[in-house]
Amino acid sequence: MSFTIQGVLIASESGYETVDVQIVGERITAIAPQLEPLGTLVEGKNKLLLPGFVNAHTHSPEMWQRGSISPVPLELWLAELYDFAPLEPEQVYLSALHTAAETLLSGGTCLVDHLILIPGREMETIAAAAQAYKEIGIRAFIAPLIQDASLAASLPSGGIQQDIRPHLHTAATVLALIEQSVAKFHQPEIGISVIPAPTGVHLCSDELLKGCVELSDRHQLCLHTHLLETRAQQLLAQEKYGCSAVAHLHKLGFLGKRTSLAHCVWLEESDIAILAETQSTVVHNPLSNLRLGSGIAPIFHYLASGVNVAFGCDGASSNDAQDLLEAIKIGSILHNVTDPDYRRWITPRQAIAMASLGGAKGLNLGDEIGTLTLGKKADCVLYDLTHLSLLPRTDPIGLLVLGRSAQAVHSAWVNGKQVMSAGQLTTVDLEHLRQALFAHSQEKMWRDSRTLPALEKQYRAVMGLTS
Amino acid sequence: MSFTIQGVLIASESGYETVDVQIVGERITAIAPQLEPLGTLVEGKNKLLLPGFVNAHTHSPEMWQRGSISPVPLELWLAELYDFAPLEPEQVYLSALHTAAETLLSGGTCLVDHLILIPGREMETIAAAAQAYKEIGIRAFIAPLIQDASLAASLPSGGIQQDIRPHLHTAATVLALIEQSVAKFHQPEIGISVIPAPTGVHLCSDELLKGCVELSDRHQLCLHTHLLETRAQQLLAQEKYGCSAVAHLHKLGFLGKRTSLAHCVWLEESDIAILAETQSTVVHNPLSNLRLGSGIAPIFHYLASGVNVAFGCDGASSNDAQDLLEAIKIGSILHNVTDPDYRRWITPRQAIAMASLGGAKGLNLGDEIGTLTLGKKADCVLYDLTHLSLLPRTDPIGLLVLGRSAQAVHSAWVNGKQVMSAGQLTTVDLEHLRQALFAHSQEKMWRDSRTLPALEKQYRAVMGLTS
Repeated sequence: MSFTIQGVLIASESGYETVDVQIVGERITAIAPQLEPLGTLVEGKNKLLLPGFVNAHTHSPEMWQRGSISPVPLELWLAELYDFAPLEPEQVYLSALHTAAETLLSGGTCLVDHLILIPGREMETIAAAAQAYKEIGIRAFIAPLIQDASLAASLPSGGIQQDIRPHLHTAATVLALIEQSVAKFHQPEIGISVIPAPTGVHLCSDELLKGCVELSDRHQLCLHTHLLETRAQQLLAQEKYGCSAVAHLHKLGFLGKRTSLAHCVWLEESDIAILAETQSTVVHNPLSNLRLGSGIAPIFHYLASGVNVAFGCDGASSNDAQDLLEAIKIGSILHNVTDPDYRRWITPRQAIAMASLGGAKGLNLGDEIGTLTLGKKADCVLYDLTHLSLLPRTDPIGLLVLGRSAQAVHSAWVNGKQVMSAGQLTTVDLEHLRQALFAHSQEKMWRDSRTLPALEKQYRAVMGLTS
Repeated sequence: MSFTIQGVLIASESGYETVDVQIVGERITAIAPQLEPLGTLVEGKNKLLLPGFVNAHTHSPEMWQRGSISPVPLELWLAELYDFAPLEPEQVYLSALHTAAETLLSGGTCLVDHLILIPGREMETIAAAAQAYKEIGIRAFIAPLIQDASLAASLPSGGIQQDIRPHLHTAATVLALIEQSVAKFHQPEIGISVIPAPTGVHLCSDELLKGCVELSDRHQLCLHTHLLETRAQQLLAQEKYGCSAVAHLHKLGFLGKRTSLAHCVWLEESDIAILAETQSTVVHNPLSNLRLGSGIAPIFHYLASGVNVAFGCDGASSNDAQDLLEAIKIGSILHNVTDPDYRRWITPRQAIAMASLGGAKGLNLGDEIGTLTLGKKADCVLYDLTHLSLLPRTDPIGLLVLGRSAQAVHSAWVNGKQVMSAGQLTTVDLEHLRQALFAHSQEKMWRDSRTLPALEKQYRAVMGLTS
């Protein structure tokens, strides 16, 4: 399959230029004005072509609970999440399709699904997500969410005696699960990867974390985990290790240029130096950090220290959407209130680069995707600049990042294969998906979590909140 | 005109109920299950009815520059804004239509347009906006942006000698302009009001501010102004008055239950007490406060002190959209990072009330609109709960506030008159508007502001930024 996008706007060094872009098979083979037409012709007039963005951290099954969890911090929010998690692989399949669809509709061509597993049906969960991503054609990193400690262990003790039940699984069991799922589903050549992704130091033993590093080394896999999302996690790491969580992960060999770390809100200067030195990637999830009151990640410090930063939507129960352009907008402008010197503020062009090349680097794909470059794979998105939400026409990248476009994506390609055309998905029937989601909805609108009250007393005591 | 919305979901005290809602003429006349059908019947199944939101602060002509202004703080941003402001009433007409359209499409039925006036063509500007709002049928408060000092006067001097040219207009001239425009365009009975709206204390003499109060008293008009949006304005007020801007406005009689104040980021405890005592309304514009790095307004303090708070999008060059649901979402979740006690966090239901009743109160219309109440005017919006962005179905208000819906508005009414149906505006042809906006676009993508460098040196010196 070859095609030529004719007369399309692309970003140049500091402005724009109008060019033809040719793709042969999976890769970009030519970018220049007025090329000899080759293959299918795509009209590029009044359109902007950008590299696809990476939704570098999400949890697809959370779609089933979006809009429904109370405004509480992460530790209590998790209690509600787990009390009402979906329990059928069919639901996982639908929410993976839905997550991928919203990602594509907002300019993403790749996602990292930190996939919540149905207890006892773990392989089926992974199979359902893999099936969905193959069908819709998005580049997907399935990162099964594994742990070997139960939820109550994620709170700092504050010196209070706790009665924590052991977790359903041991480190050995979950590592075997990942090994099997890599053997069965890891097919990076067709765009589906499976990677070790421990929940985070707050819920994992060293044995589990080291096992993940070993798997990553043996199969050349990326690593993904949550890191210091909340102040409670910072306190817990100090209790547990007597050092920061970053220093501990570094000691275990977990950090490196294949490692991406979701959140990174509560890091210290010395932690930032470790991330820079190890070439680890921070995944910034600004909307869930606000929704859960986790804090504002020190993104300007990361950028100034040379740490690679990508954007994620996070799961749809803590955002509660999967719109990458929203995450990019808020993740860019949020930090302006933390530094009066506007010369450090993120420009729309920087934001676009973080969302595309930054995301690619975090998945060790910086040489393969993330920019419109000869020889790179064609993961790219064509925006219609005549859409009402992008009018009047001014600076197209400024409008995309700082505005609020809806349905501005005209076409999208992953690995050179078209997955959107004329504003519609070409691989999946959205109307059918919409009907299935409606049919499977359970309107538990007045739910009471059993776990939340059990954790709340401990949480308020440790965090110094008056009852 | 009478109509009955049948079998529609509305919010009850803490849950939802399914009812019929009847409107006769301008007003809601019945709300109960299974009413005798009356007038036109509207299908309410799988839909949610809410009172319309108020876009309580915007500047419609900024649409022409959205996406184009550099990431800089307000004082420098203003320089770029004024260098490239639209100069034709035809543009003002189109951007007013566009602002109203985006407001309606995101659940708003009322807006306050702090209208930037074309120098020398002030009455034509107001006429163009009034024409647009009449046509589209939104409830509009046209608040012509008036001042009698030039832009350079808005920076604190920091003890540095400044050479500030006098402004184009005197206080007397602009007050006469408002008097005339009230006589000509103020028709609250058809939904168009004109109100005195000085830019802010930073650009207005006491003579002008007092003149506005006098006009407000004489014609029973609301008052609107910017207040302490930036730290520079806080410094300036101290230099200028030796007291806070709030104390000064209070002294002039500017504050009261007909007064709404945009931003209020840099207030002190004693200021907050004055706002509560005078029943003034704060208009929270979270997105522009982030984009311009102005700061995070202390909204929890306002709410705890009994100050009424509404939401605004602010002008489209500092946001850069006019989506009320976006402003409501960010304006709700942003504050969670400022207070660890989640029991003070804004719930989706509170946010909806702030956006509707809070907005209504700020315009002295709390008894007329802002809730679905018998006898109130029918300014209301019907949301389609089967839209992809609101699926799976969970808590409808949670999904609307915390998600990112697009095109979820099915129908809207203002003053009992239908302005949207089946997701489309009924009064204005959006496709025609889109073409006109495209035709009038001027893609000045690589613009250099002349005024910005002139102000920047002074700004950096006064704000303590190293050059």
